[in-house]
Amino acid sequence: MDSFWKTSISRVRPGEILVRGYPIEQLTRNCCFGDICYLLLTGELPRGNEGKLVEAILISCCEHSLASPSVDAVRFVASSGVPLQTAVAAGISAIGDLHGGAIEPCARVLQAAVKEGKDAKTIFEELRRQKKRLPGFGHPVHRDLDPRVKVLLELAAEWSLIGDHTRLAQELEKAAEESLGRPLPMNVDGVIGALMSDMGMDPALGKAFFIVGRSIGYVAHTHEQVTQERSFKAASYQDVEYTGPDRRNIDG
Amino acid sequence: MDSFWKTSISRVRPGEILVRGYPIEQLTRNCCFGDICYLLLTGELPRGNEGKLVEAILISCCEHSLASPSVDAVRFVASSGVPLQTAVAAGISAIGDLHGGAIEPCARVLQAAVKEGKDAKTIFEELRRQKKRLPGFGHPVHRDLDPRVKVLLELAAEWSLIGDHTRLAQELEKAAEESLGRPLPMNVDGVIGALMSDMGMDPALGKAFFIVGRSIGYVAHTHEQVTQERSFKAASYQDVEYTGPDRRNIDG
Amino acid sequence: MDSFWKTSISRVRPGEILVRGYPIEQLTRNCCFGDICYLLLTGELPRGNEGKLVEAILISCCEHSLASPSVDAVRFVASSGVPLQTAVAAGISAIGDLHGGAIEPCARVLQAAVKEGKDAKTIFEELRRQKKRLPGFGHPVHRDLDPRVKVLLELAAEWSLIGDHTRLAQELEKAAEESLGRPLPMNVDGVIGALMSDMGMDPALGKAFFIVGRSIGYVAHTHEQVTQERSFKAASYQDVEYTGPDRRNIDG
Amino acid sequence: MDSFWKTSISRVRPGEILVRGYPIEQLTRNCCFGDICYLLLTGELPRGNEGKLVEAILISCCEHSLASPSVDAVRFVASSGVPLQTAVAAGISAIGDLHGGAIEPCARVLQAAVKEGKDAKTIFEELRRQKKRLPGFGHPVHRDLDPRVKVLLELAAEWSLIGDHTRLAQELEKAAEESLGRPLPMNVDGVIGALMSDMGMDPALGKAFFIVGRSIGYVAHTHEQVTQERSFKAASYQDVEYTGPDRRNIDG
Repeated sequence: MDSFWKTSISRVRPGEILVRGYPIEQLTRNCCFGDICYLLLTGELPRGNEGKLVEAILISCCEHSLASPSVDAVRFVASSGVPLQTAVAAGISAIGDLHGGAIEPCARVLQAAVKEGKDAKTIFEELRRQKKRLPGFGHPVHRDLDPRVKVLLELAAEWSLIGDHTRLAQELEKAAEESLGRPLPMNVDGVIGALMSDMGMDPALGKAFFIVGRSIGYVAHTHEQVTQERSFKAASYQDVEYTGPDRRNIDG
Repeated sequence: MDSFWKTSISRVRPGEILVRGYPIEQLTRNCCFGDICYLLLTGELPRGNEGKLVEAILISCCEHSLASPSVDAVRFVASSGVPLQTAVAAGISAIGDLHGGAIEPCARVLQAAVKEGKDAKTIFEELRRQKKRLPGFGHPVHRDLDPRVKVLLELAAEWSLIGDHTRLAQELEKAAEESLGRPLPMNVDGVIGALMSDMGMDPALGKAFFIVGRSIGYVAHTHEQVTQERSFKAASYQDVEYTGPDRRNIDG
Repeated sequence: MDSFWKTSISRVRPGEILVRGYPIEQLTRNCCFGDICYLLLTGELPRGNEGKLVEAILISCCEHSLASPSVDAVRFVASSGVPLQTAVAAGISAIGDLHGGAIEPCARVLQAAVKEGKDAKTIFEELRRQKKRLPGFGHPVHRDLDPRVKVLLELAAEWSLIGDHTRLAQELEKAAEESLGRPLPMNVDGVIGALMSDMGMDPALGKAFFIVGRSIGYVAHTHEQVTQERSFKAASYQDVEYTGPDRRNIDG
Repeated sequence: MDSFWKTSISRVRPGEILVRGYPIEQLTRNCCFGDICYLLLTGELPRGNEGKLVEAILISCCEHSLASPSVDAVRFVASSGVPLQTAVAAGISAIGDLHGGAIEPCARVLQAAVKEGKDAKTIFEELRRQKKRLPGFGHPVHRDLDPRVKVLLELAAEWSLIGDHTRLAQELEKAAEESLGRPLPMNVDGVIGALMSDMGMDPALGKAFFIVGRSIGYVAHTHEQVTQERSFKAASYQDVEYTGPDRRNIDG
């Protein structure tokens, strides 16, 4: 019969912790945190610069100020008298399909297209016909150049980590602009979806980069909320517009 | 009047993301993720090897197999048909005072003692008189040498990051053994509490290392659960011992 | 410009709380909790016995022992030294598409079919052709009669709250048995999906009954865990089957 | 050896669900939801009107508009593209020590005082000497009469459920006003702490009423957010006051 508790990720015994077979003390001494993320996500240590690229991706995700639903949620939860981990967990729970959620579908589009040998123009026109948006392109604030996209593409090129998926994403940018008559630049979700695909990762892991990278930002916001602001952060009742029924009585 | 939305952590404008004043693209190009954690937690970039030590700490926290309440919680939540971030958030929410929770009180003990100039023997005897445990010492599985403690102390020494707090923690180990007549080794929480204190960090941030470091482990466990196991993981009703009242009828 | 803070649900002023227009003190005095759930979900107080039926549904969802992924998650989280609300929140977060998640798709199937005038046989055959399961039918433990289904149908009949959707669900049970040659009984998700549809509710609210009803069960499990069991509930490392790579060295 | 899975709360077998010994179908038919809450929290069904009082308490907690940290958190999380249960869980996780958190310490104060036979004046003066606030008294919005407090006290009196703890809470109100020279009225947390104490409940369960009662409010806010507002609710970057360091370059 199958064991109820079973895992291939790590083994613990007294005095020993193996992660994917490697002793934790060797990993701690020889690897960067990006290597460990790569190891946990793929099962193997990087052969090239993948660990450094993972770190760069995590850094690019670390903060976006209060202009972010999850960070705003963290501030309210943190103000309520809860432990650090509770506020951070609320932030992570809000990394939904509309907030950091384009990485995964972007990676799916790119991986399917590369597998089937489709070119950028075909993909873009197919999506338009299905009235679907191209996931990972366009940004409500960074309408032109997103500084995170530029630096990640530069580093990936320097580290020889640009492959078919990222090239296709770059062509999609051109195809979109031609078709729409205006730029639709790759956003940070899009570039991560492309780069993780070139690192051979399962699209289902797309949100992992945002989750881990932003978690330290949530910690900072929780600490700032608790140490610098009044507790019980909430909209003032005077600022709430009530659009429901007027005062009414039961049976009235 | 105070702004409702206010932060010193980062600024976002179209085409610009500043973290503690630094442009995100410069941070992405020049820093490791540990530097960014240090920057977000303290407000400044490291002057020495602190970023590397933060990375080593994160790695030491990344995994502890299923012998961990939070990882077990992640597996059950992940089996229920929820998105990745939901399962990871459940794990993070379980980093409670009894699970990764000794870092903070250990740092408090050490920072107070260093400030007041107390030696190890005095601290240990005071805690005993108050019938309090020394937080950050002893481990239910790694009773002798915890491999994570050894490597973190070695790296901190190589990187010149051992200061008064870590030295005091090492003396506490000796004082405890002398007093108890058996070893009470520093555990991974204890060494992190000591090292973060030597890096000048607020004890209230103690759980941050475990939160961020373990988050990637939770991602791996979620992915394994969803791709390798049946859904709806739960105790079988046959395996549950019921200790409540026998079957009874209302009004019976 | 639109207000940032806007709601039709309730209004708060000093000395006044209106819910959907009704003063909270009138609701507290005159209504049962099921009436309030109905009011919050639909905008109006029930005209008949809907509030009583909502209460019956909540009760039917309140507990399923440890044979439930979310309850198991609650027990692990609760053992980690966290506040009550944290453990309950972890349980609620696990009410996923595979755990309490059939109410919503069942209600969608029924509401679409009633709208289009489809009969049970047609629906069932269509789903089979699309190789889709009929949501809300069949149960891994309660293979024959689920006591919750029986009592909810009886009460709804007594309270004149059975309409087209529930009748269709009952016909689907017959159609499924005829087509499969074995019973495929309606489960508790199915009956709730049917009854909420007859009460005119949006299928998107399907999980609400399970969320609210089970929340008190999670409270009880958290309290039992904290007061009756050892802290740090986790699989013992000896009970974990490790299926990953053998011990290996970096560069080895 | 102890079973790993053990509970006195409920038993599940094929075709049978017992809650504290009672068959679920009998509970569903004969009880109100408040009875079930009482049963789960105390182990027994009420002998008097306790179930009705629990319902009244749940109703009094159900909504407080957007003037609430947890509801605001729910709105942001809900806007991010997550399932219903995720947004509700975020709200529940924010029922912290500063938000619904006075029920428990108020019940502790009252239960200790009743046990030790202390009168209101003594308790209040002791707290003042220790520079502690009296938990469960005073409200930032409802400075005078909180309508929830009034109706709960009236109903408890009608249902013969006022005992020593609630009487003491009422005397504390008078003692506080005499001592301070201004009113410090009991708030909704305070009255719940008093009433649950008179129902014989453990103070550790204090937040349960708010958790369960407000959960349906969180459902309504999630549904309103998703169906009535734009997605990705967040502070606009233009509205965020940045108080950190000016733009600076690394090594600059």
